[in-house]
Amino acid sequence: MELPELNDIRKAAVRIAGEVHSTPVLSSATLNAETGAELFFKCENFQRTGSFKFRGATNAVLSLSEIDYTNGVCTHSSGNHGAALAAAAAGRGIAAQIVVPENAAQPKQDSIRRYGGVITHCEPTLEARETMLAEVQKRTGATFVSPYNDFRIISGQGTAALELMEEVDGLDCLIAPVGGGGLLSGTAVVGVGLRVFGAEPEQADDAKRSLDAGEIMPSHPDTIADGLLTSLGTMTFAVISEHVEDILTVSETEIIEAMRTSWQLLKIVIEPSSAVVVAAVLRNHELFAGKRVGVILTGGNVDLARLPF
Amino acid sequence: MELPELNDIRKAAVRIAGEVHSTPVLSSATLNAETGAELFFKCENFQRTGSFKFRGATNAVLSLSEIDYTNGVCTHSSGNHGAALAAAAAGRGIAAQIVVPENAAQPKQDSIRRYGGVITHCEPTLEARETMLAEVQKRTGATFVSPYNDFRIISGQGTAALELMEEVDGLDCLIAPVGGGGLLSGTAVVGVGLRVFGAEPEQADDAKRSLDAGEIMPSHPDTIADGLLTSLGTMTFAVISEHVEDILTVSETEIIEAMRTSWQLLKIVIEPSSAVVVAAVLRNHELFAGKRVGVILTGGNVDLARLPF
Repeated sequence: MELPELNDIRKAAVRIAGEVHSTPVLSSATLNAETGAELFFKCENFQRTGSFKFRGATNAVLSLSEIDYTNGVCTHSSGNHGAALAAAAAGRGIAAQIVVPENAAQPKQDSIRRYGGVITHCEPTLEARETMLAEVQKRTGATFVSPYNDFRIISGQGTAALELMEEVDGLDCLIAPVGGGGLLSGTAVVGVGLRVFGAEPEQADDAKRSLDAGEIMPSHPDTIADGLLTSLGTMTFAVISEHVEDILTVSETEIIEAMRTSWQLLKIVIEPSSAVVVAAVLRNHELFAGKRVGVILTGGNVDLARLPF
Repeated sequence: MELPELNDIRKAAVRIAGEVHSTPVLSSATLNAETGAELFFKCENFQRTGSFKFRGATNAVLSLSEIDYTNGVCTHSSGNHGAALAAAAAGRGIAAQIVVPENAAQPKQDSIRRYGGVITHCEPTLEARETMLAEVQKRTGATFVSPYNDFRIISGQGTAALELMEEVDGLDCLIAPVGGGGLLSGTAVVGVGLRVFGAEPEQADDAKRSLDAGEIMPSHPDTIADGLLTSLGTMTFAVISEHVEDILTVSETEIIEAMRTSWQLLKIVIEPSSAVVVAAVLRNHELFAGKRVGVILTGGNVDLARLPF
């Protein structure tokens, strides 16, 4: 299995440069004082489609062969990856077929449609999702773009950390949330030589358990951080095992509190899956005190009518 | 009366450069599509203390004479100017006396204290405020820094538009909210040669009425946009009369809806006084269609426990 290296992420950055936003980096004197660290928040909530997922999706679409190009792309997603792939495909005038569990949140489905994705519903089980995806793929000939366990996706997601390291000198640490592990893998490849951490909910701690066990452990997630429900894939497990120092876990209460704190102090709208990294930094501030820490905030797609605070 | 000119704002920008954040400019493909304009949002909600007020306050503090310096500064404020002046003063190690109406919102008072301001309460009338301020000034010898009707304040606030024009080429229009008019005055001085608009609530439309009447009209404000309650001063009236094309007014419903839209699409936390400009652009999109529009978002100090939507 070929794993992405720094140069693959550099190539991805060049490939997607005209399509993605170069997102700003924010800081807060109050949060720095509270943690004793210098925190640099990379705001991928400002990325197109509202999350970093647009980076990987764009890299995947722009990497298609000419033959695959005409048949478009497909994936399964109940969230940000679906919207990101739809938008990336629409940007090149090709179709995106998105298999969506029928119980997926309405705003997320609306978002996939708004960006031009064609939704096919399935029952909300892993099996139904994979069966339906195979059917869609057979019917359309579309190329499957995995949400995370994919060389092109990992390379694309790594460009967020690459940008951050170009924007901020002398970082000591990087931290990113981990669900399927695409973002954390890309971040870890870019962050070689730095201390790289993942963050995940205690109630979806399969990445932590997988690293401890030395093999991929299943997830039984029950968390408000709905972007972090999936388990690691073979490729992301391999990269994270090699490059990531530790996975820090946080409680649901800490996630909600960190979300509120980020909105209040940073004046940004981030979703719970983003708040997980803020919570991890606040909980483990002795680990980061005196360090320059790059904190990757992943997305801002929140239903304002259903805030948890 | 000497009015600020472009060069005064350039000097202010140099003076405050080490103290203020150079804030990012965001855009939204969805909002551009909705309005037919290219909108560039200058995010002063990310400014230190959570609003553009820190620019003017810092410029005022750094402009003090050595003699005035030791006695510190004072002002009256129920909101962002008080916190900004407190923080600017604290940055130079001098005292800030802030006269605050006893019914001012608790989060705003907490903020003034957090930044090191010394609060003196007064009854919530204009007369009580001015009497108390005179007492404080007599007791401490502190220099009064007006929230808006002040050469140094206007010059400092204008640096937001100056930065925006350096960050974005070829702007056709600038729009900023207007309360006392410090920000709009500074923006108008910088924006000579562009079309400059103000935005205010229908229910606090004294700036609009003042421009129409050719003299300063009193305000009887009743609006959620609590940063825009004050009337123009002599200096801001003079600058705005000369340089601003029109004041656009919006309803309370439009303000709340624009606030929600900004949070949802731009992923930023802005307060109602900021949302007024977004509402004005959405309401008057025929005015801005085909134009490159710089939109100055002023602050993000919101009580998350009391959202209007």
